[in-house]
Amino acid sequence: MVNIAVLGFGVVGSGVVELMKSNHDKIAGSAAQEINVKYILDIMSFPDSPFADLFVDRFEVIENDPDVQIVVETIGGTKAAYDYTMRSLRAGKNVITSNKELVASFGHEILKLAKEKNLNFLFEASVGGGIPILRPINQCLAANEIKEIYGILNGTTNYILSRMIKNGSSFEESLKEARDKGYAEADPSADIQGKDTCRKICILSALSFGRHIFPEQVPTVGIEIVEAVDMAYAKSMGAKIKLVGRAVRTENGKVAVYVAPHLVLSDSLLANVEDVFNCIVVRGNAIGDTMFYGKGAGKLPTASAVVADIIDAAKHFHARKYIYWEAGGNSAVSDPELLENRWFLRAGITSKEAMELFGDIILIDDKNGFTVFSTGMINEKELKNRMTGRTIYACYRILE
Amino acid sequence: MVNIAVLGFGVVGSGVVELMKSNHDKIAGSAAQEINVKYILDIMSFPDSPFADLFVDRFEVIENDPDVQIVVETIGGTKAAYDYTMRSLRAGKNVITSNKELVASFGHEILKLAKEKNLNFLFEASVGGGIPILRPINQCLAANEIKEIYGILNGTTNYILSRMIKNGSSFEESLKEARDKGYAEADPSADIQGKDTCRKICILSALSFGRHIFPEQVPTVGIEIVEAVDMAYAKSMGAKIKLVGRAVRTENGKVAVYVAPHLVLSDSLLANVEDVFNCIVVRGNAIGDTMFYGKGAGKLPTASAVVADIIDAAKHFHARKYIYWEAGGNSAVSDPELLENRWFLRAGITSKEAMELFGDIILIDDKNGFTVFSTGMINEKELKNRMTGRTIYACYRILE
Repeated sequence: MVNIAVLGFGVVGSGVVELMKSNHDKIAGSAAQEINVKYILDIMSFPDSPFADLFVDRFEVIENDPDVQIVVETIGGTKAAYDYTMRSLRAGKNVITSNKELVASFGHEILKLAKEKNLNFLFEASVGGGIPILRPINQCLAANEIKEIYGILNGTTNYILSRMIKNGSSFEESLKEARDKGYAEADPSADIQGKDTCRKICILSALSFGRHIFPEQVPTVGIEIVEAVDMAYAKSMGAKIKLVGRAVRTENGKVAVYVAPHLVLSDSLLANVEDVFNCIVVRGNAIGDTMFYGKGAGKLPTASAVVADIIDAAKHFHARKYIYWEAGGNSAVSDPELLENRWFLRAGITSKEAMELFGDIILIDDKNGFTVFSTGMINEKELKNRMTGRTIYACYRILE
Repeated sequence: MVNIAVLGFGVVGSGVVELMKSNHDKIAGSAAQEINVKYILDIMSFPDSPFADLFVDRFEVIENDPDVQIVVETIGGTKAAYDYTMRSLRAGKNVITSNKELVASFGHEILKLAKEKNLNFLFEASVGGGIPILRPINQCLAANEIKEIYGILNGTTNYILSRMIKNGSSFEESLKEARDKGYAEADPSADIQGKDTCRKICILSALSFGRHIFPEQVPTVGIEIVEAVDMAYAKSMGAKIKLVGRAVRTENGKVAVYVAPHLVLSDSLLANVEDVFNCIVVRGNAIGDTMFYGKGAGKLPTASAVVADIIDAAKHFHARKYIYWEAGGNSAVSDPELLENRWFLRAGITSKEAMELFGDIILIDDKNGFTVFSTGMINEKELKNRMTGRTIYACYRILE
């Protein structure tokens, strides 16, 4: 029998405990042994919970109990979550987390300690909710040089953009709708400003390319800049505007990573990813494009990814999983402004000027005091350079 | 260092050897050790191959060499492939295969021997080419009760159907095109008759639901019955006809498994899977729908899945992967004729008769001496029952 402790009894923590109960037989079968929730740590008390007698309010109880082999961290943030994670590992316990902020900020440091202690630190639920993605990258694609990884990584913003596109409603209306349905948090700024997507692409990059990428190293633009007029132009092109996190291997093993809204053409793999769904595309040198799709958020999908990690840890007490990446630093990243794309532009220039500046453009509209067009392949630095002194109203990379 | 032997130097076998060379550093890094191809077994000789000095023509050389820890079977079929697989395991060697026929026919028996010998028998490449799917089902979805699994599992037939839909060309023309592009084998009957899809859904079912499913237990209809007229009707509904393998958990842990062309509606997850791409949808009780997408065939994608298994086996000499399923038999399966669906029908009845027989139908056409319509939810047995004595020209389940 394996004993676990769950830190935090919020959406994910309670989902884990409930799933451990409702799918008990399947889980015991997969793990080839019983998995028992021995403690739940939370500062709030839940006297009416069916699990009320499992609650403790001091981490030391868990830390000092040698019977606890796996600690499940679902507290969030990087304060208590970081402290308890490191202390759990030092106490010889495996750690599972769903906390993307923790992994994006301290992944290398935690993995290093886990390696030294010959313990597992697993975090499948931190990216893509219930979608199995970290493990496939790590294992199934082990034979591939990964060239690029990108995707729609945040369900809240994708829901808002989907609503704006489908119903023509404004950003504010769509955000309200997302809140009413429980898809947006009380303070949705981490989602809307792209920070959540940024943390996830940091984790995907580190796992795919081998070095820690810090959120501060990733230029991040959220969806608050997206205007209805550009969504309408996108629609007229059979395209949609979607928030994408993207990491591309460049020279010398460096990686160019960024987060920004993109114009997604209708034949792109991401074109039909709507509402709270997430989708991640991995481009390998042998396999070509592989796509992983599913619900990127929600209590049960996320809990199911956490429980899968628990099962995996329970089966691997004596054989560490080979999840690891090296330290980060300036030498890990290159400038995404040098990545070439086709671009969608709405700018305060005439169509004649647009043609003079960018040559072979596709003109979309020039009847409203600005010109809307798409360019050929060009990098961002060069694009900004040519537009010096001119007004750019909107500027999106095109994903084909 | 780990030594491997590759049996068969056809498309997959040569792809494996080439990939081991071209991605050498990445592979050694993933496996945390060197992996060396010591032997290639083939009855043909390849004097001009850069690997010419690795060839042997007697399996005994490999069987009796204690330095060979992993045998990679890419021969195909169930004769030599079965014999060498069992002998390799008896000789204490792990076995990797891309051979779906072998796994679909003898999976339980081979897994049982591997378990007894504490060895790994891995076969990721047998389903979905390079798409990581078996491992995600086995590990990442370990916490879910899987309720259903279905998908487009055969690249050749999907290519042919895509061409017929896109270009309006006939089955024969599209098959010729597939042959010209190397997507169809000289004898494509196993693909076209649905046998290849059948083997793959057998493997997915066994892994998802825990018991061996034999191809003979799976009612299988291929694409040779698909007529252009029905594709045109499907198109008028915004739908497409695609070959789908499907397994649904029914009462008492039984599984209803079948292969047949389906009418796929435009908002289905499978609607945009074109050409040689494969797509597999897993429906879990916690995770909801998850989708895996990528190239289902081709030398390098398949080889990359084989090499991922080699790496995994090399990392798990002392900790067997928990891939296993129990013996099959009549008690494992239930009758797919009892699965309810909406149906697309083209029949020699009047629209009035169609309404009398099926109630709330959606009428598509009744101007050409037959009636085309879709039904509400009904199982196949009952549908056939109501149509007794009447002519059915076409009859497809609808996938929404």
